[in-house]
Amino acid sequence: MTERYLEDFEAGQTFRSQRIRIDADRIKRFAAEFDPQPFHLDERAATDSIFRSLAASGWHTAAITMRLLVEGDLKPAGGIVGAGFDELRWPRPVRPGDELWVESEVLEVRASKSRPNQGVIKVRATTLNQNNEPVQVLVGNLIVLRRPVSSGKKGKFNML
Amino acid sequence: MTERYLEDFEAGQTFRSQRIRIDADRIKRFAAEFDPQPFHLDERAATDSIFRSLAASGWHTAAITMRLLVEGDLKPAGGIVGAGFDELRWPRPVRPGDELWVESEVLEVRASKSRPNQGVIKVRATTLNQNNEPVQVLVGNLIVLRRPVSSGKKGKFNML
Repeated sequence: MTERYLEDFEAGQTFRSQRIRIDADRIKRFAAEFDPQPFHLDERAATDSIFRSLAASGWHTAAITMRLLVEGDLKPAGGIVGAGFDELRWPRPVRPGDELWVESEVLEVRASKSRPNQGVIKVRATTLNQNNEPVQVLVGNLIVLRRPVSSGKKGKFNML
Repeated sequence: MTERYLEDFEAGQTFRSQRIRIDADRIKRFAAEFDPQPFHLDERAATDSIFRSLAASGWHTAAITMRLLVEGDLKPAGGIVGAGFDELRWPRPVRPGDELWVESEVLEVRASKSRPNQGVIKVRATTLNQNNEPVQVLVGNLIVLRRPVSSGKKGKFNML
């Protein structure tokens, strides 16, 4: 799969990722480093919390989502570089044993007025579990290179 | 520091976290697991990217921010549980050696109409580096328990 330039994207395109399984041990290790709260660290403590049983940190879900996006077919030229997000929600908890995958939809494509060699695509990335229930909804704007006009010189982009 | 109930929060309150230093090795290890793109993995490859030199994954910055929030003085009763975010931006890259800290401001406090034992606070958490430059801005809504009316019974909350 080659990289996609801004010209290769259009609203309505969808992309699906592979699946990653998340287990209790990894949930707890991520939480111990980044989100050390009882409901992410310990099955028993979690029963008395809003989550009722062990649940992954939302930031763990977000990080796994990024992995699935990077390895998926979206492949914007220059890499997946977020320029900002409009929405981030975790509609239901991620549990040990869940298998996560991501469906992305291009919502909008626009060229930059100030930087002629790049543009922005707005993407909704929905992370689902093995029952196809959404566990995360992320709407973000990604910076994407335009197709270089002259051949031979590789496109580069700058911060918007 | 004891937990804060909804009644203990008011708009305008600010909280500061401790600092965490982030080094090149940890940037690369996080990226290898969650965001395997050249500009997060390798100094040399990063020079040819939008970031110009090695930069941490934004999701790494977000995860570190969560750690700083959990260990900080915000301490909402029931834990830090995000009900959704209005904004997430990374205005400048995080570099090896940066020392990150978080300043949080309560923007809004409101009781839930449907669930009398809980409410929501809107918080802006700005992550800064050692030069006090913002590297991440996160505006989110946290679910917080109200102070229990009867003593003796511990408050519990449910998904909104």
